[in-house]
Amino acid sequence: MLKLYYAPHTCSLATHIVLEEVGAAYALERVDFSTDEQRSPRFLAINPKGRVPALGTEHGVLTETPAMLAFVAQSFPAARLALLDDPFAFAEVQAFNSYLCSSLHVAHAHRMRGHRWVDPADTAAIAAMQRKVPESVGAGFELIERDMFRGPWVMGERYTICDPYLFTLAQWMEKDGVDPGRFPRVADHRRRMSERPGVKKAIAAELA
Amino acid sequence: MLKLYYAPHTCSLATHIVLEEVGAAYALERVDFSTDEQRSPRFLAINPKGRVPALGTEHGVLTETPAMLAFVAQSFPAARLALLDDPFAFAEVQAFNSYLCSSLHVAHAHRMRGHRWVDPADTAAIAAMQRKVPESVGAGFELIERDMFRGPWVMGERYTICDPYLFTLAQWMEKDGVDPGRFPRVADHRRRMSERPGVKKAIAAELA
Repeated sequence: MLKLYYAPHTCSLATHIVLEEVGAAYALERVDFSTDEQRSPRFLAINPKGRVPALGTEHGVLTETPAMLAFVAQSFPAARLALLDDPFAFAEVQAFNSYLCSSLHVAHAHRMRGHRWVDPADTAAIAAMQRKVPESVGAGFELIERDMFRGPWVMGERYTICDPYLFTLAQWMEKDGVDPGRFPRVADHRRRMSERPGVKKAIAAELA
Repeated sequence: MLKLYYAPHTCSLATHIVLEEVGAAYALERVDFSTDEQRSPRFLAINPKGRVPALGTEHGVLTETPAMLAFVAQSFPAARLALLDDPFAFAEVQAFNSYLCSSLHVAHAHRMRGHRWVDPADTAAIAAMQRKVPESVGAGFELIERDMFRGPWVMGERYTICDPYLFTLAQWMEKDGVDPGRFPRVADHRRRMSERPGVKKAIAAELA
């Protein structure tokens, strides 16, 4: 059975939602960030990166949200969540998710995880990073709103693995100092996503 | 015909090598960073992100290296460069490439592109980021050397789209202040990669 290692308020929610929506049988294991459990020897043996999400499978452990999302979609092909049979459509799905992972999430991470990229003792540099977050995260959502989001779903008429991932990152907007009112299409998508039963169930399980 | 928009010394080299290795018919268009051509109205109409690489296809333009690599592999299935018929193996390929894109490349980018994450006028914060690069890029290669690289190729016996991508980022190690001698397996991989005809041809074309 699949097992999702997660922590609340992280991007593990995206895979959690997709597991719900394809009807997968899966177990959940919460990783306690308050005790730095992600860097415990036990968890490092599961994921040497010391991060969530990770997905235990019968073949081994997977990491990295874009890879995990495509894996779940490919393992449950009936749901057609990644358009894998059309190489260009699948590449567009992957390009969107790769942008979220390597640009939008990275911009966001400079608010809480600046120590990855400067000496943690350099409080001025840490603060300089935090000050830029509203601008850099805002620019990412601007690009999505204007050039990438097709509507009603990210890829157009078809709901895909891009939708739970965008929803997950859009949940962080206010704390990143970005006004959702600037992005009416993304905000409307977020509202519609939040009404889906699988989304409600995943969020309730993580916050329980 | 496929058309690769590239700039020398960027991650566009990874897709360039794969296009060579699958025997694709493709055109090259160099984007001149010295005149900021990537932000020209003409190029922004091709890629609104204002970056390379981008790949023109008969269906439209693709961006993001992990997506482009998987697209080329899926379009030329005979070369079996992405192991797409095995969902777990393909997910491992994707997880590796996603790590390069969202962690290792991002760590590297703090040396030259710190302005993305702090006010460009804040020279102290820009310098603070640059000082951390040897450590953060080094930690990324350490994880690859110790936990991710299987040998002789990234995924083991099978050469995949992970190999040109790792090679491309490993080319930047010295300028990032990281001693390749710390990572004998990655260094040996880089040497073997540099001897492949497709790699030589791609590099020669980019530097011409």
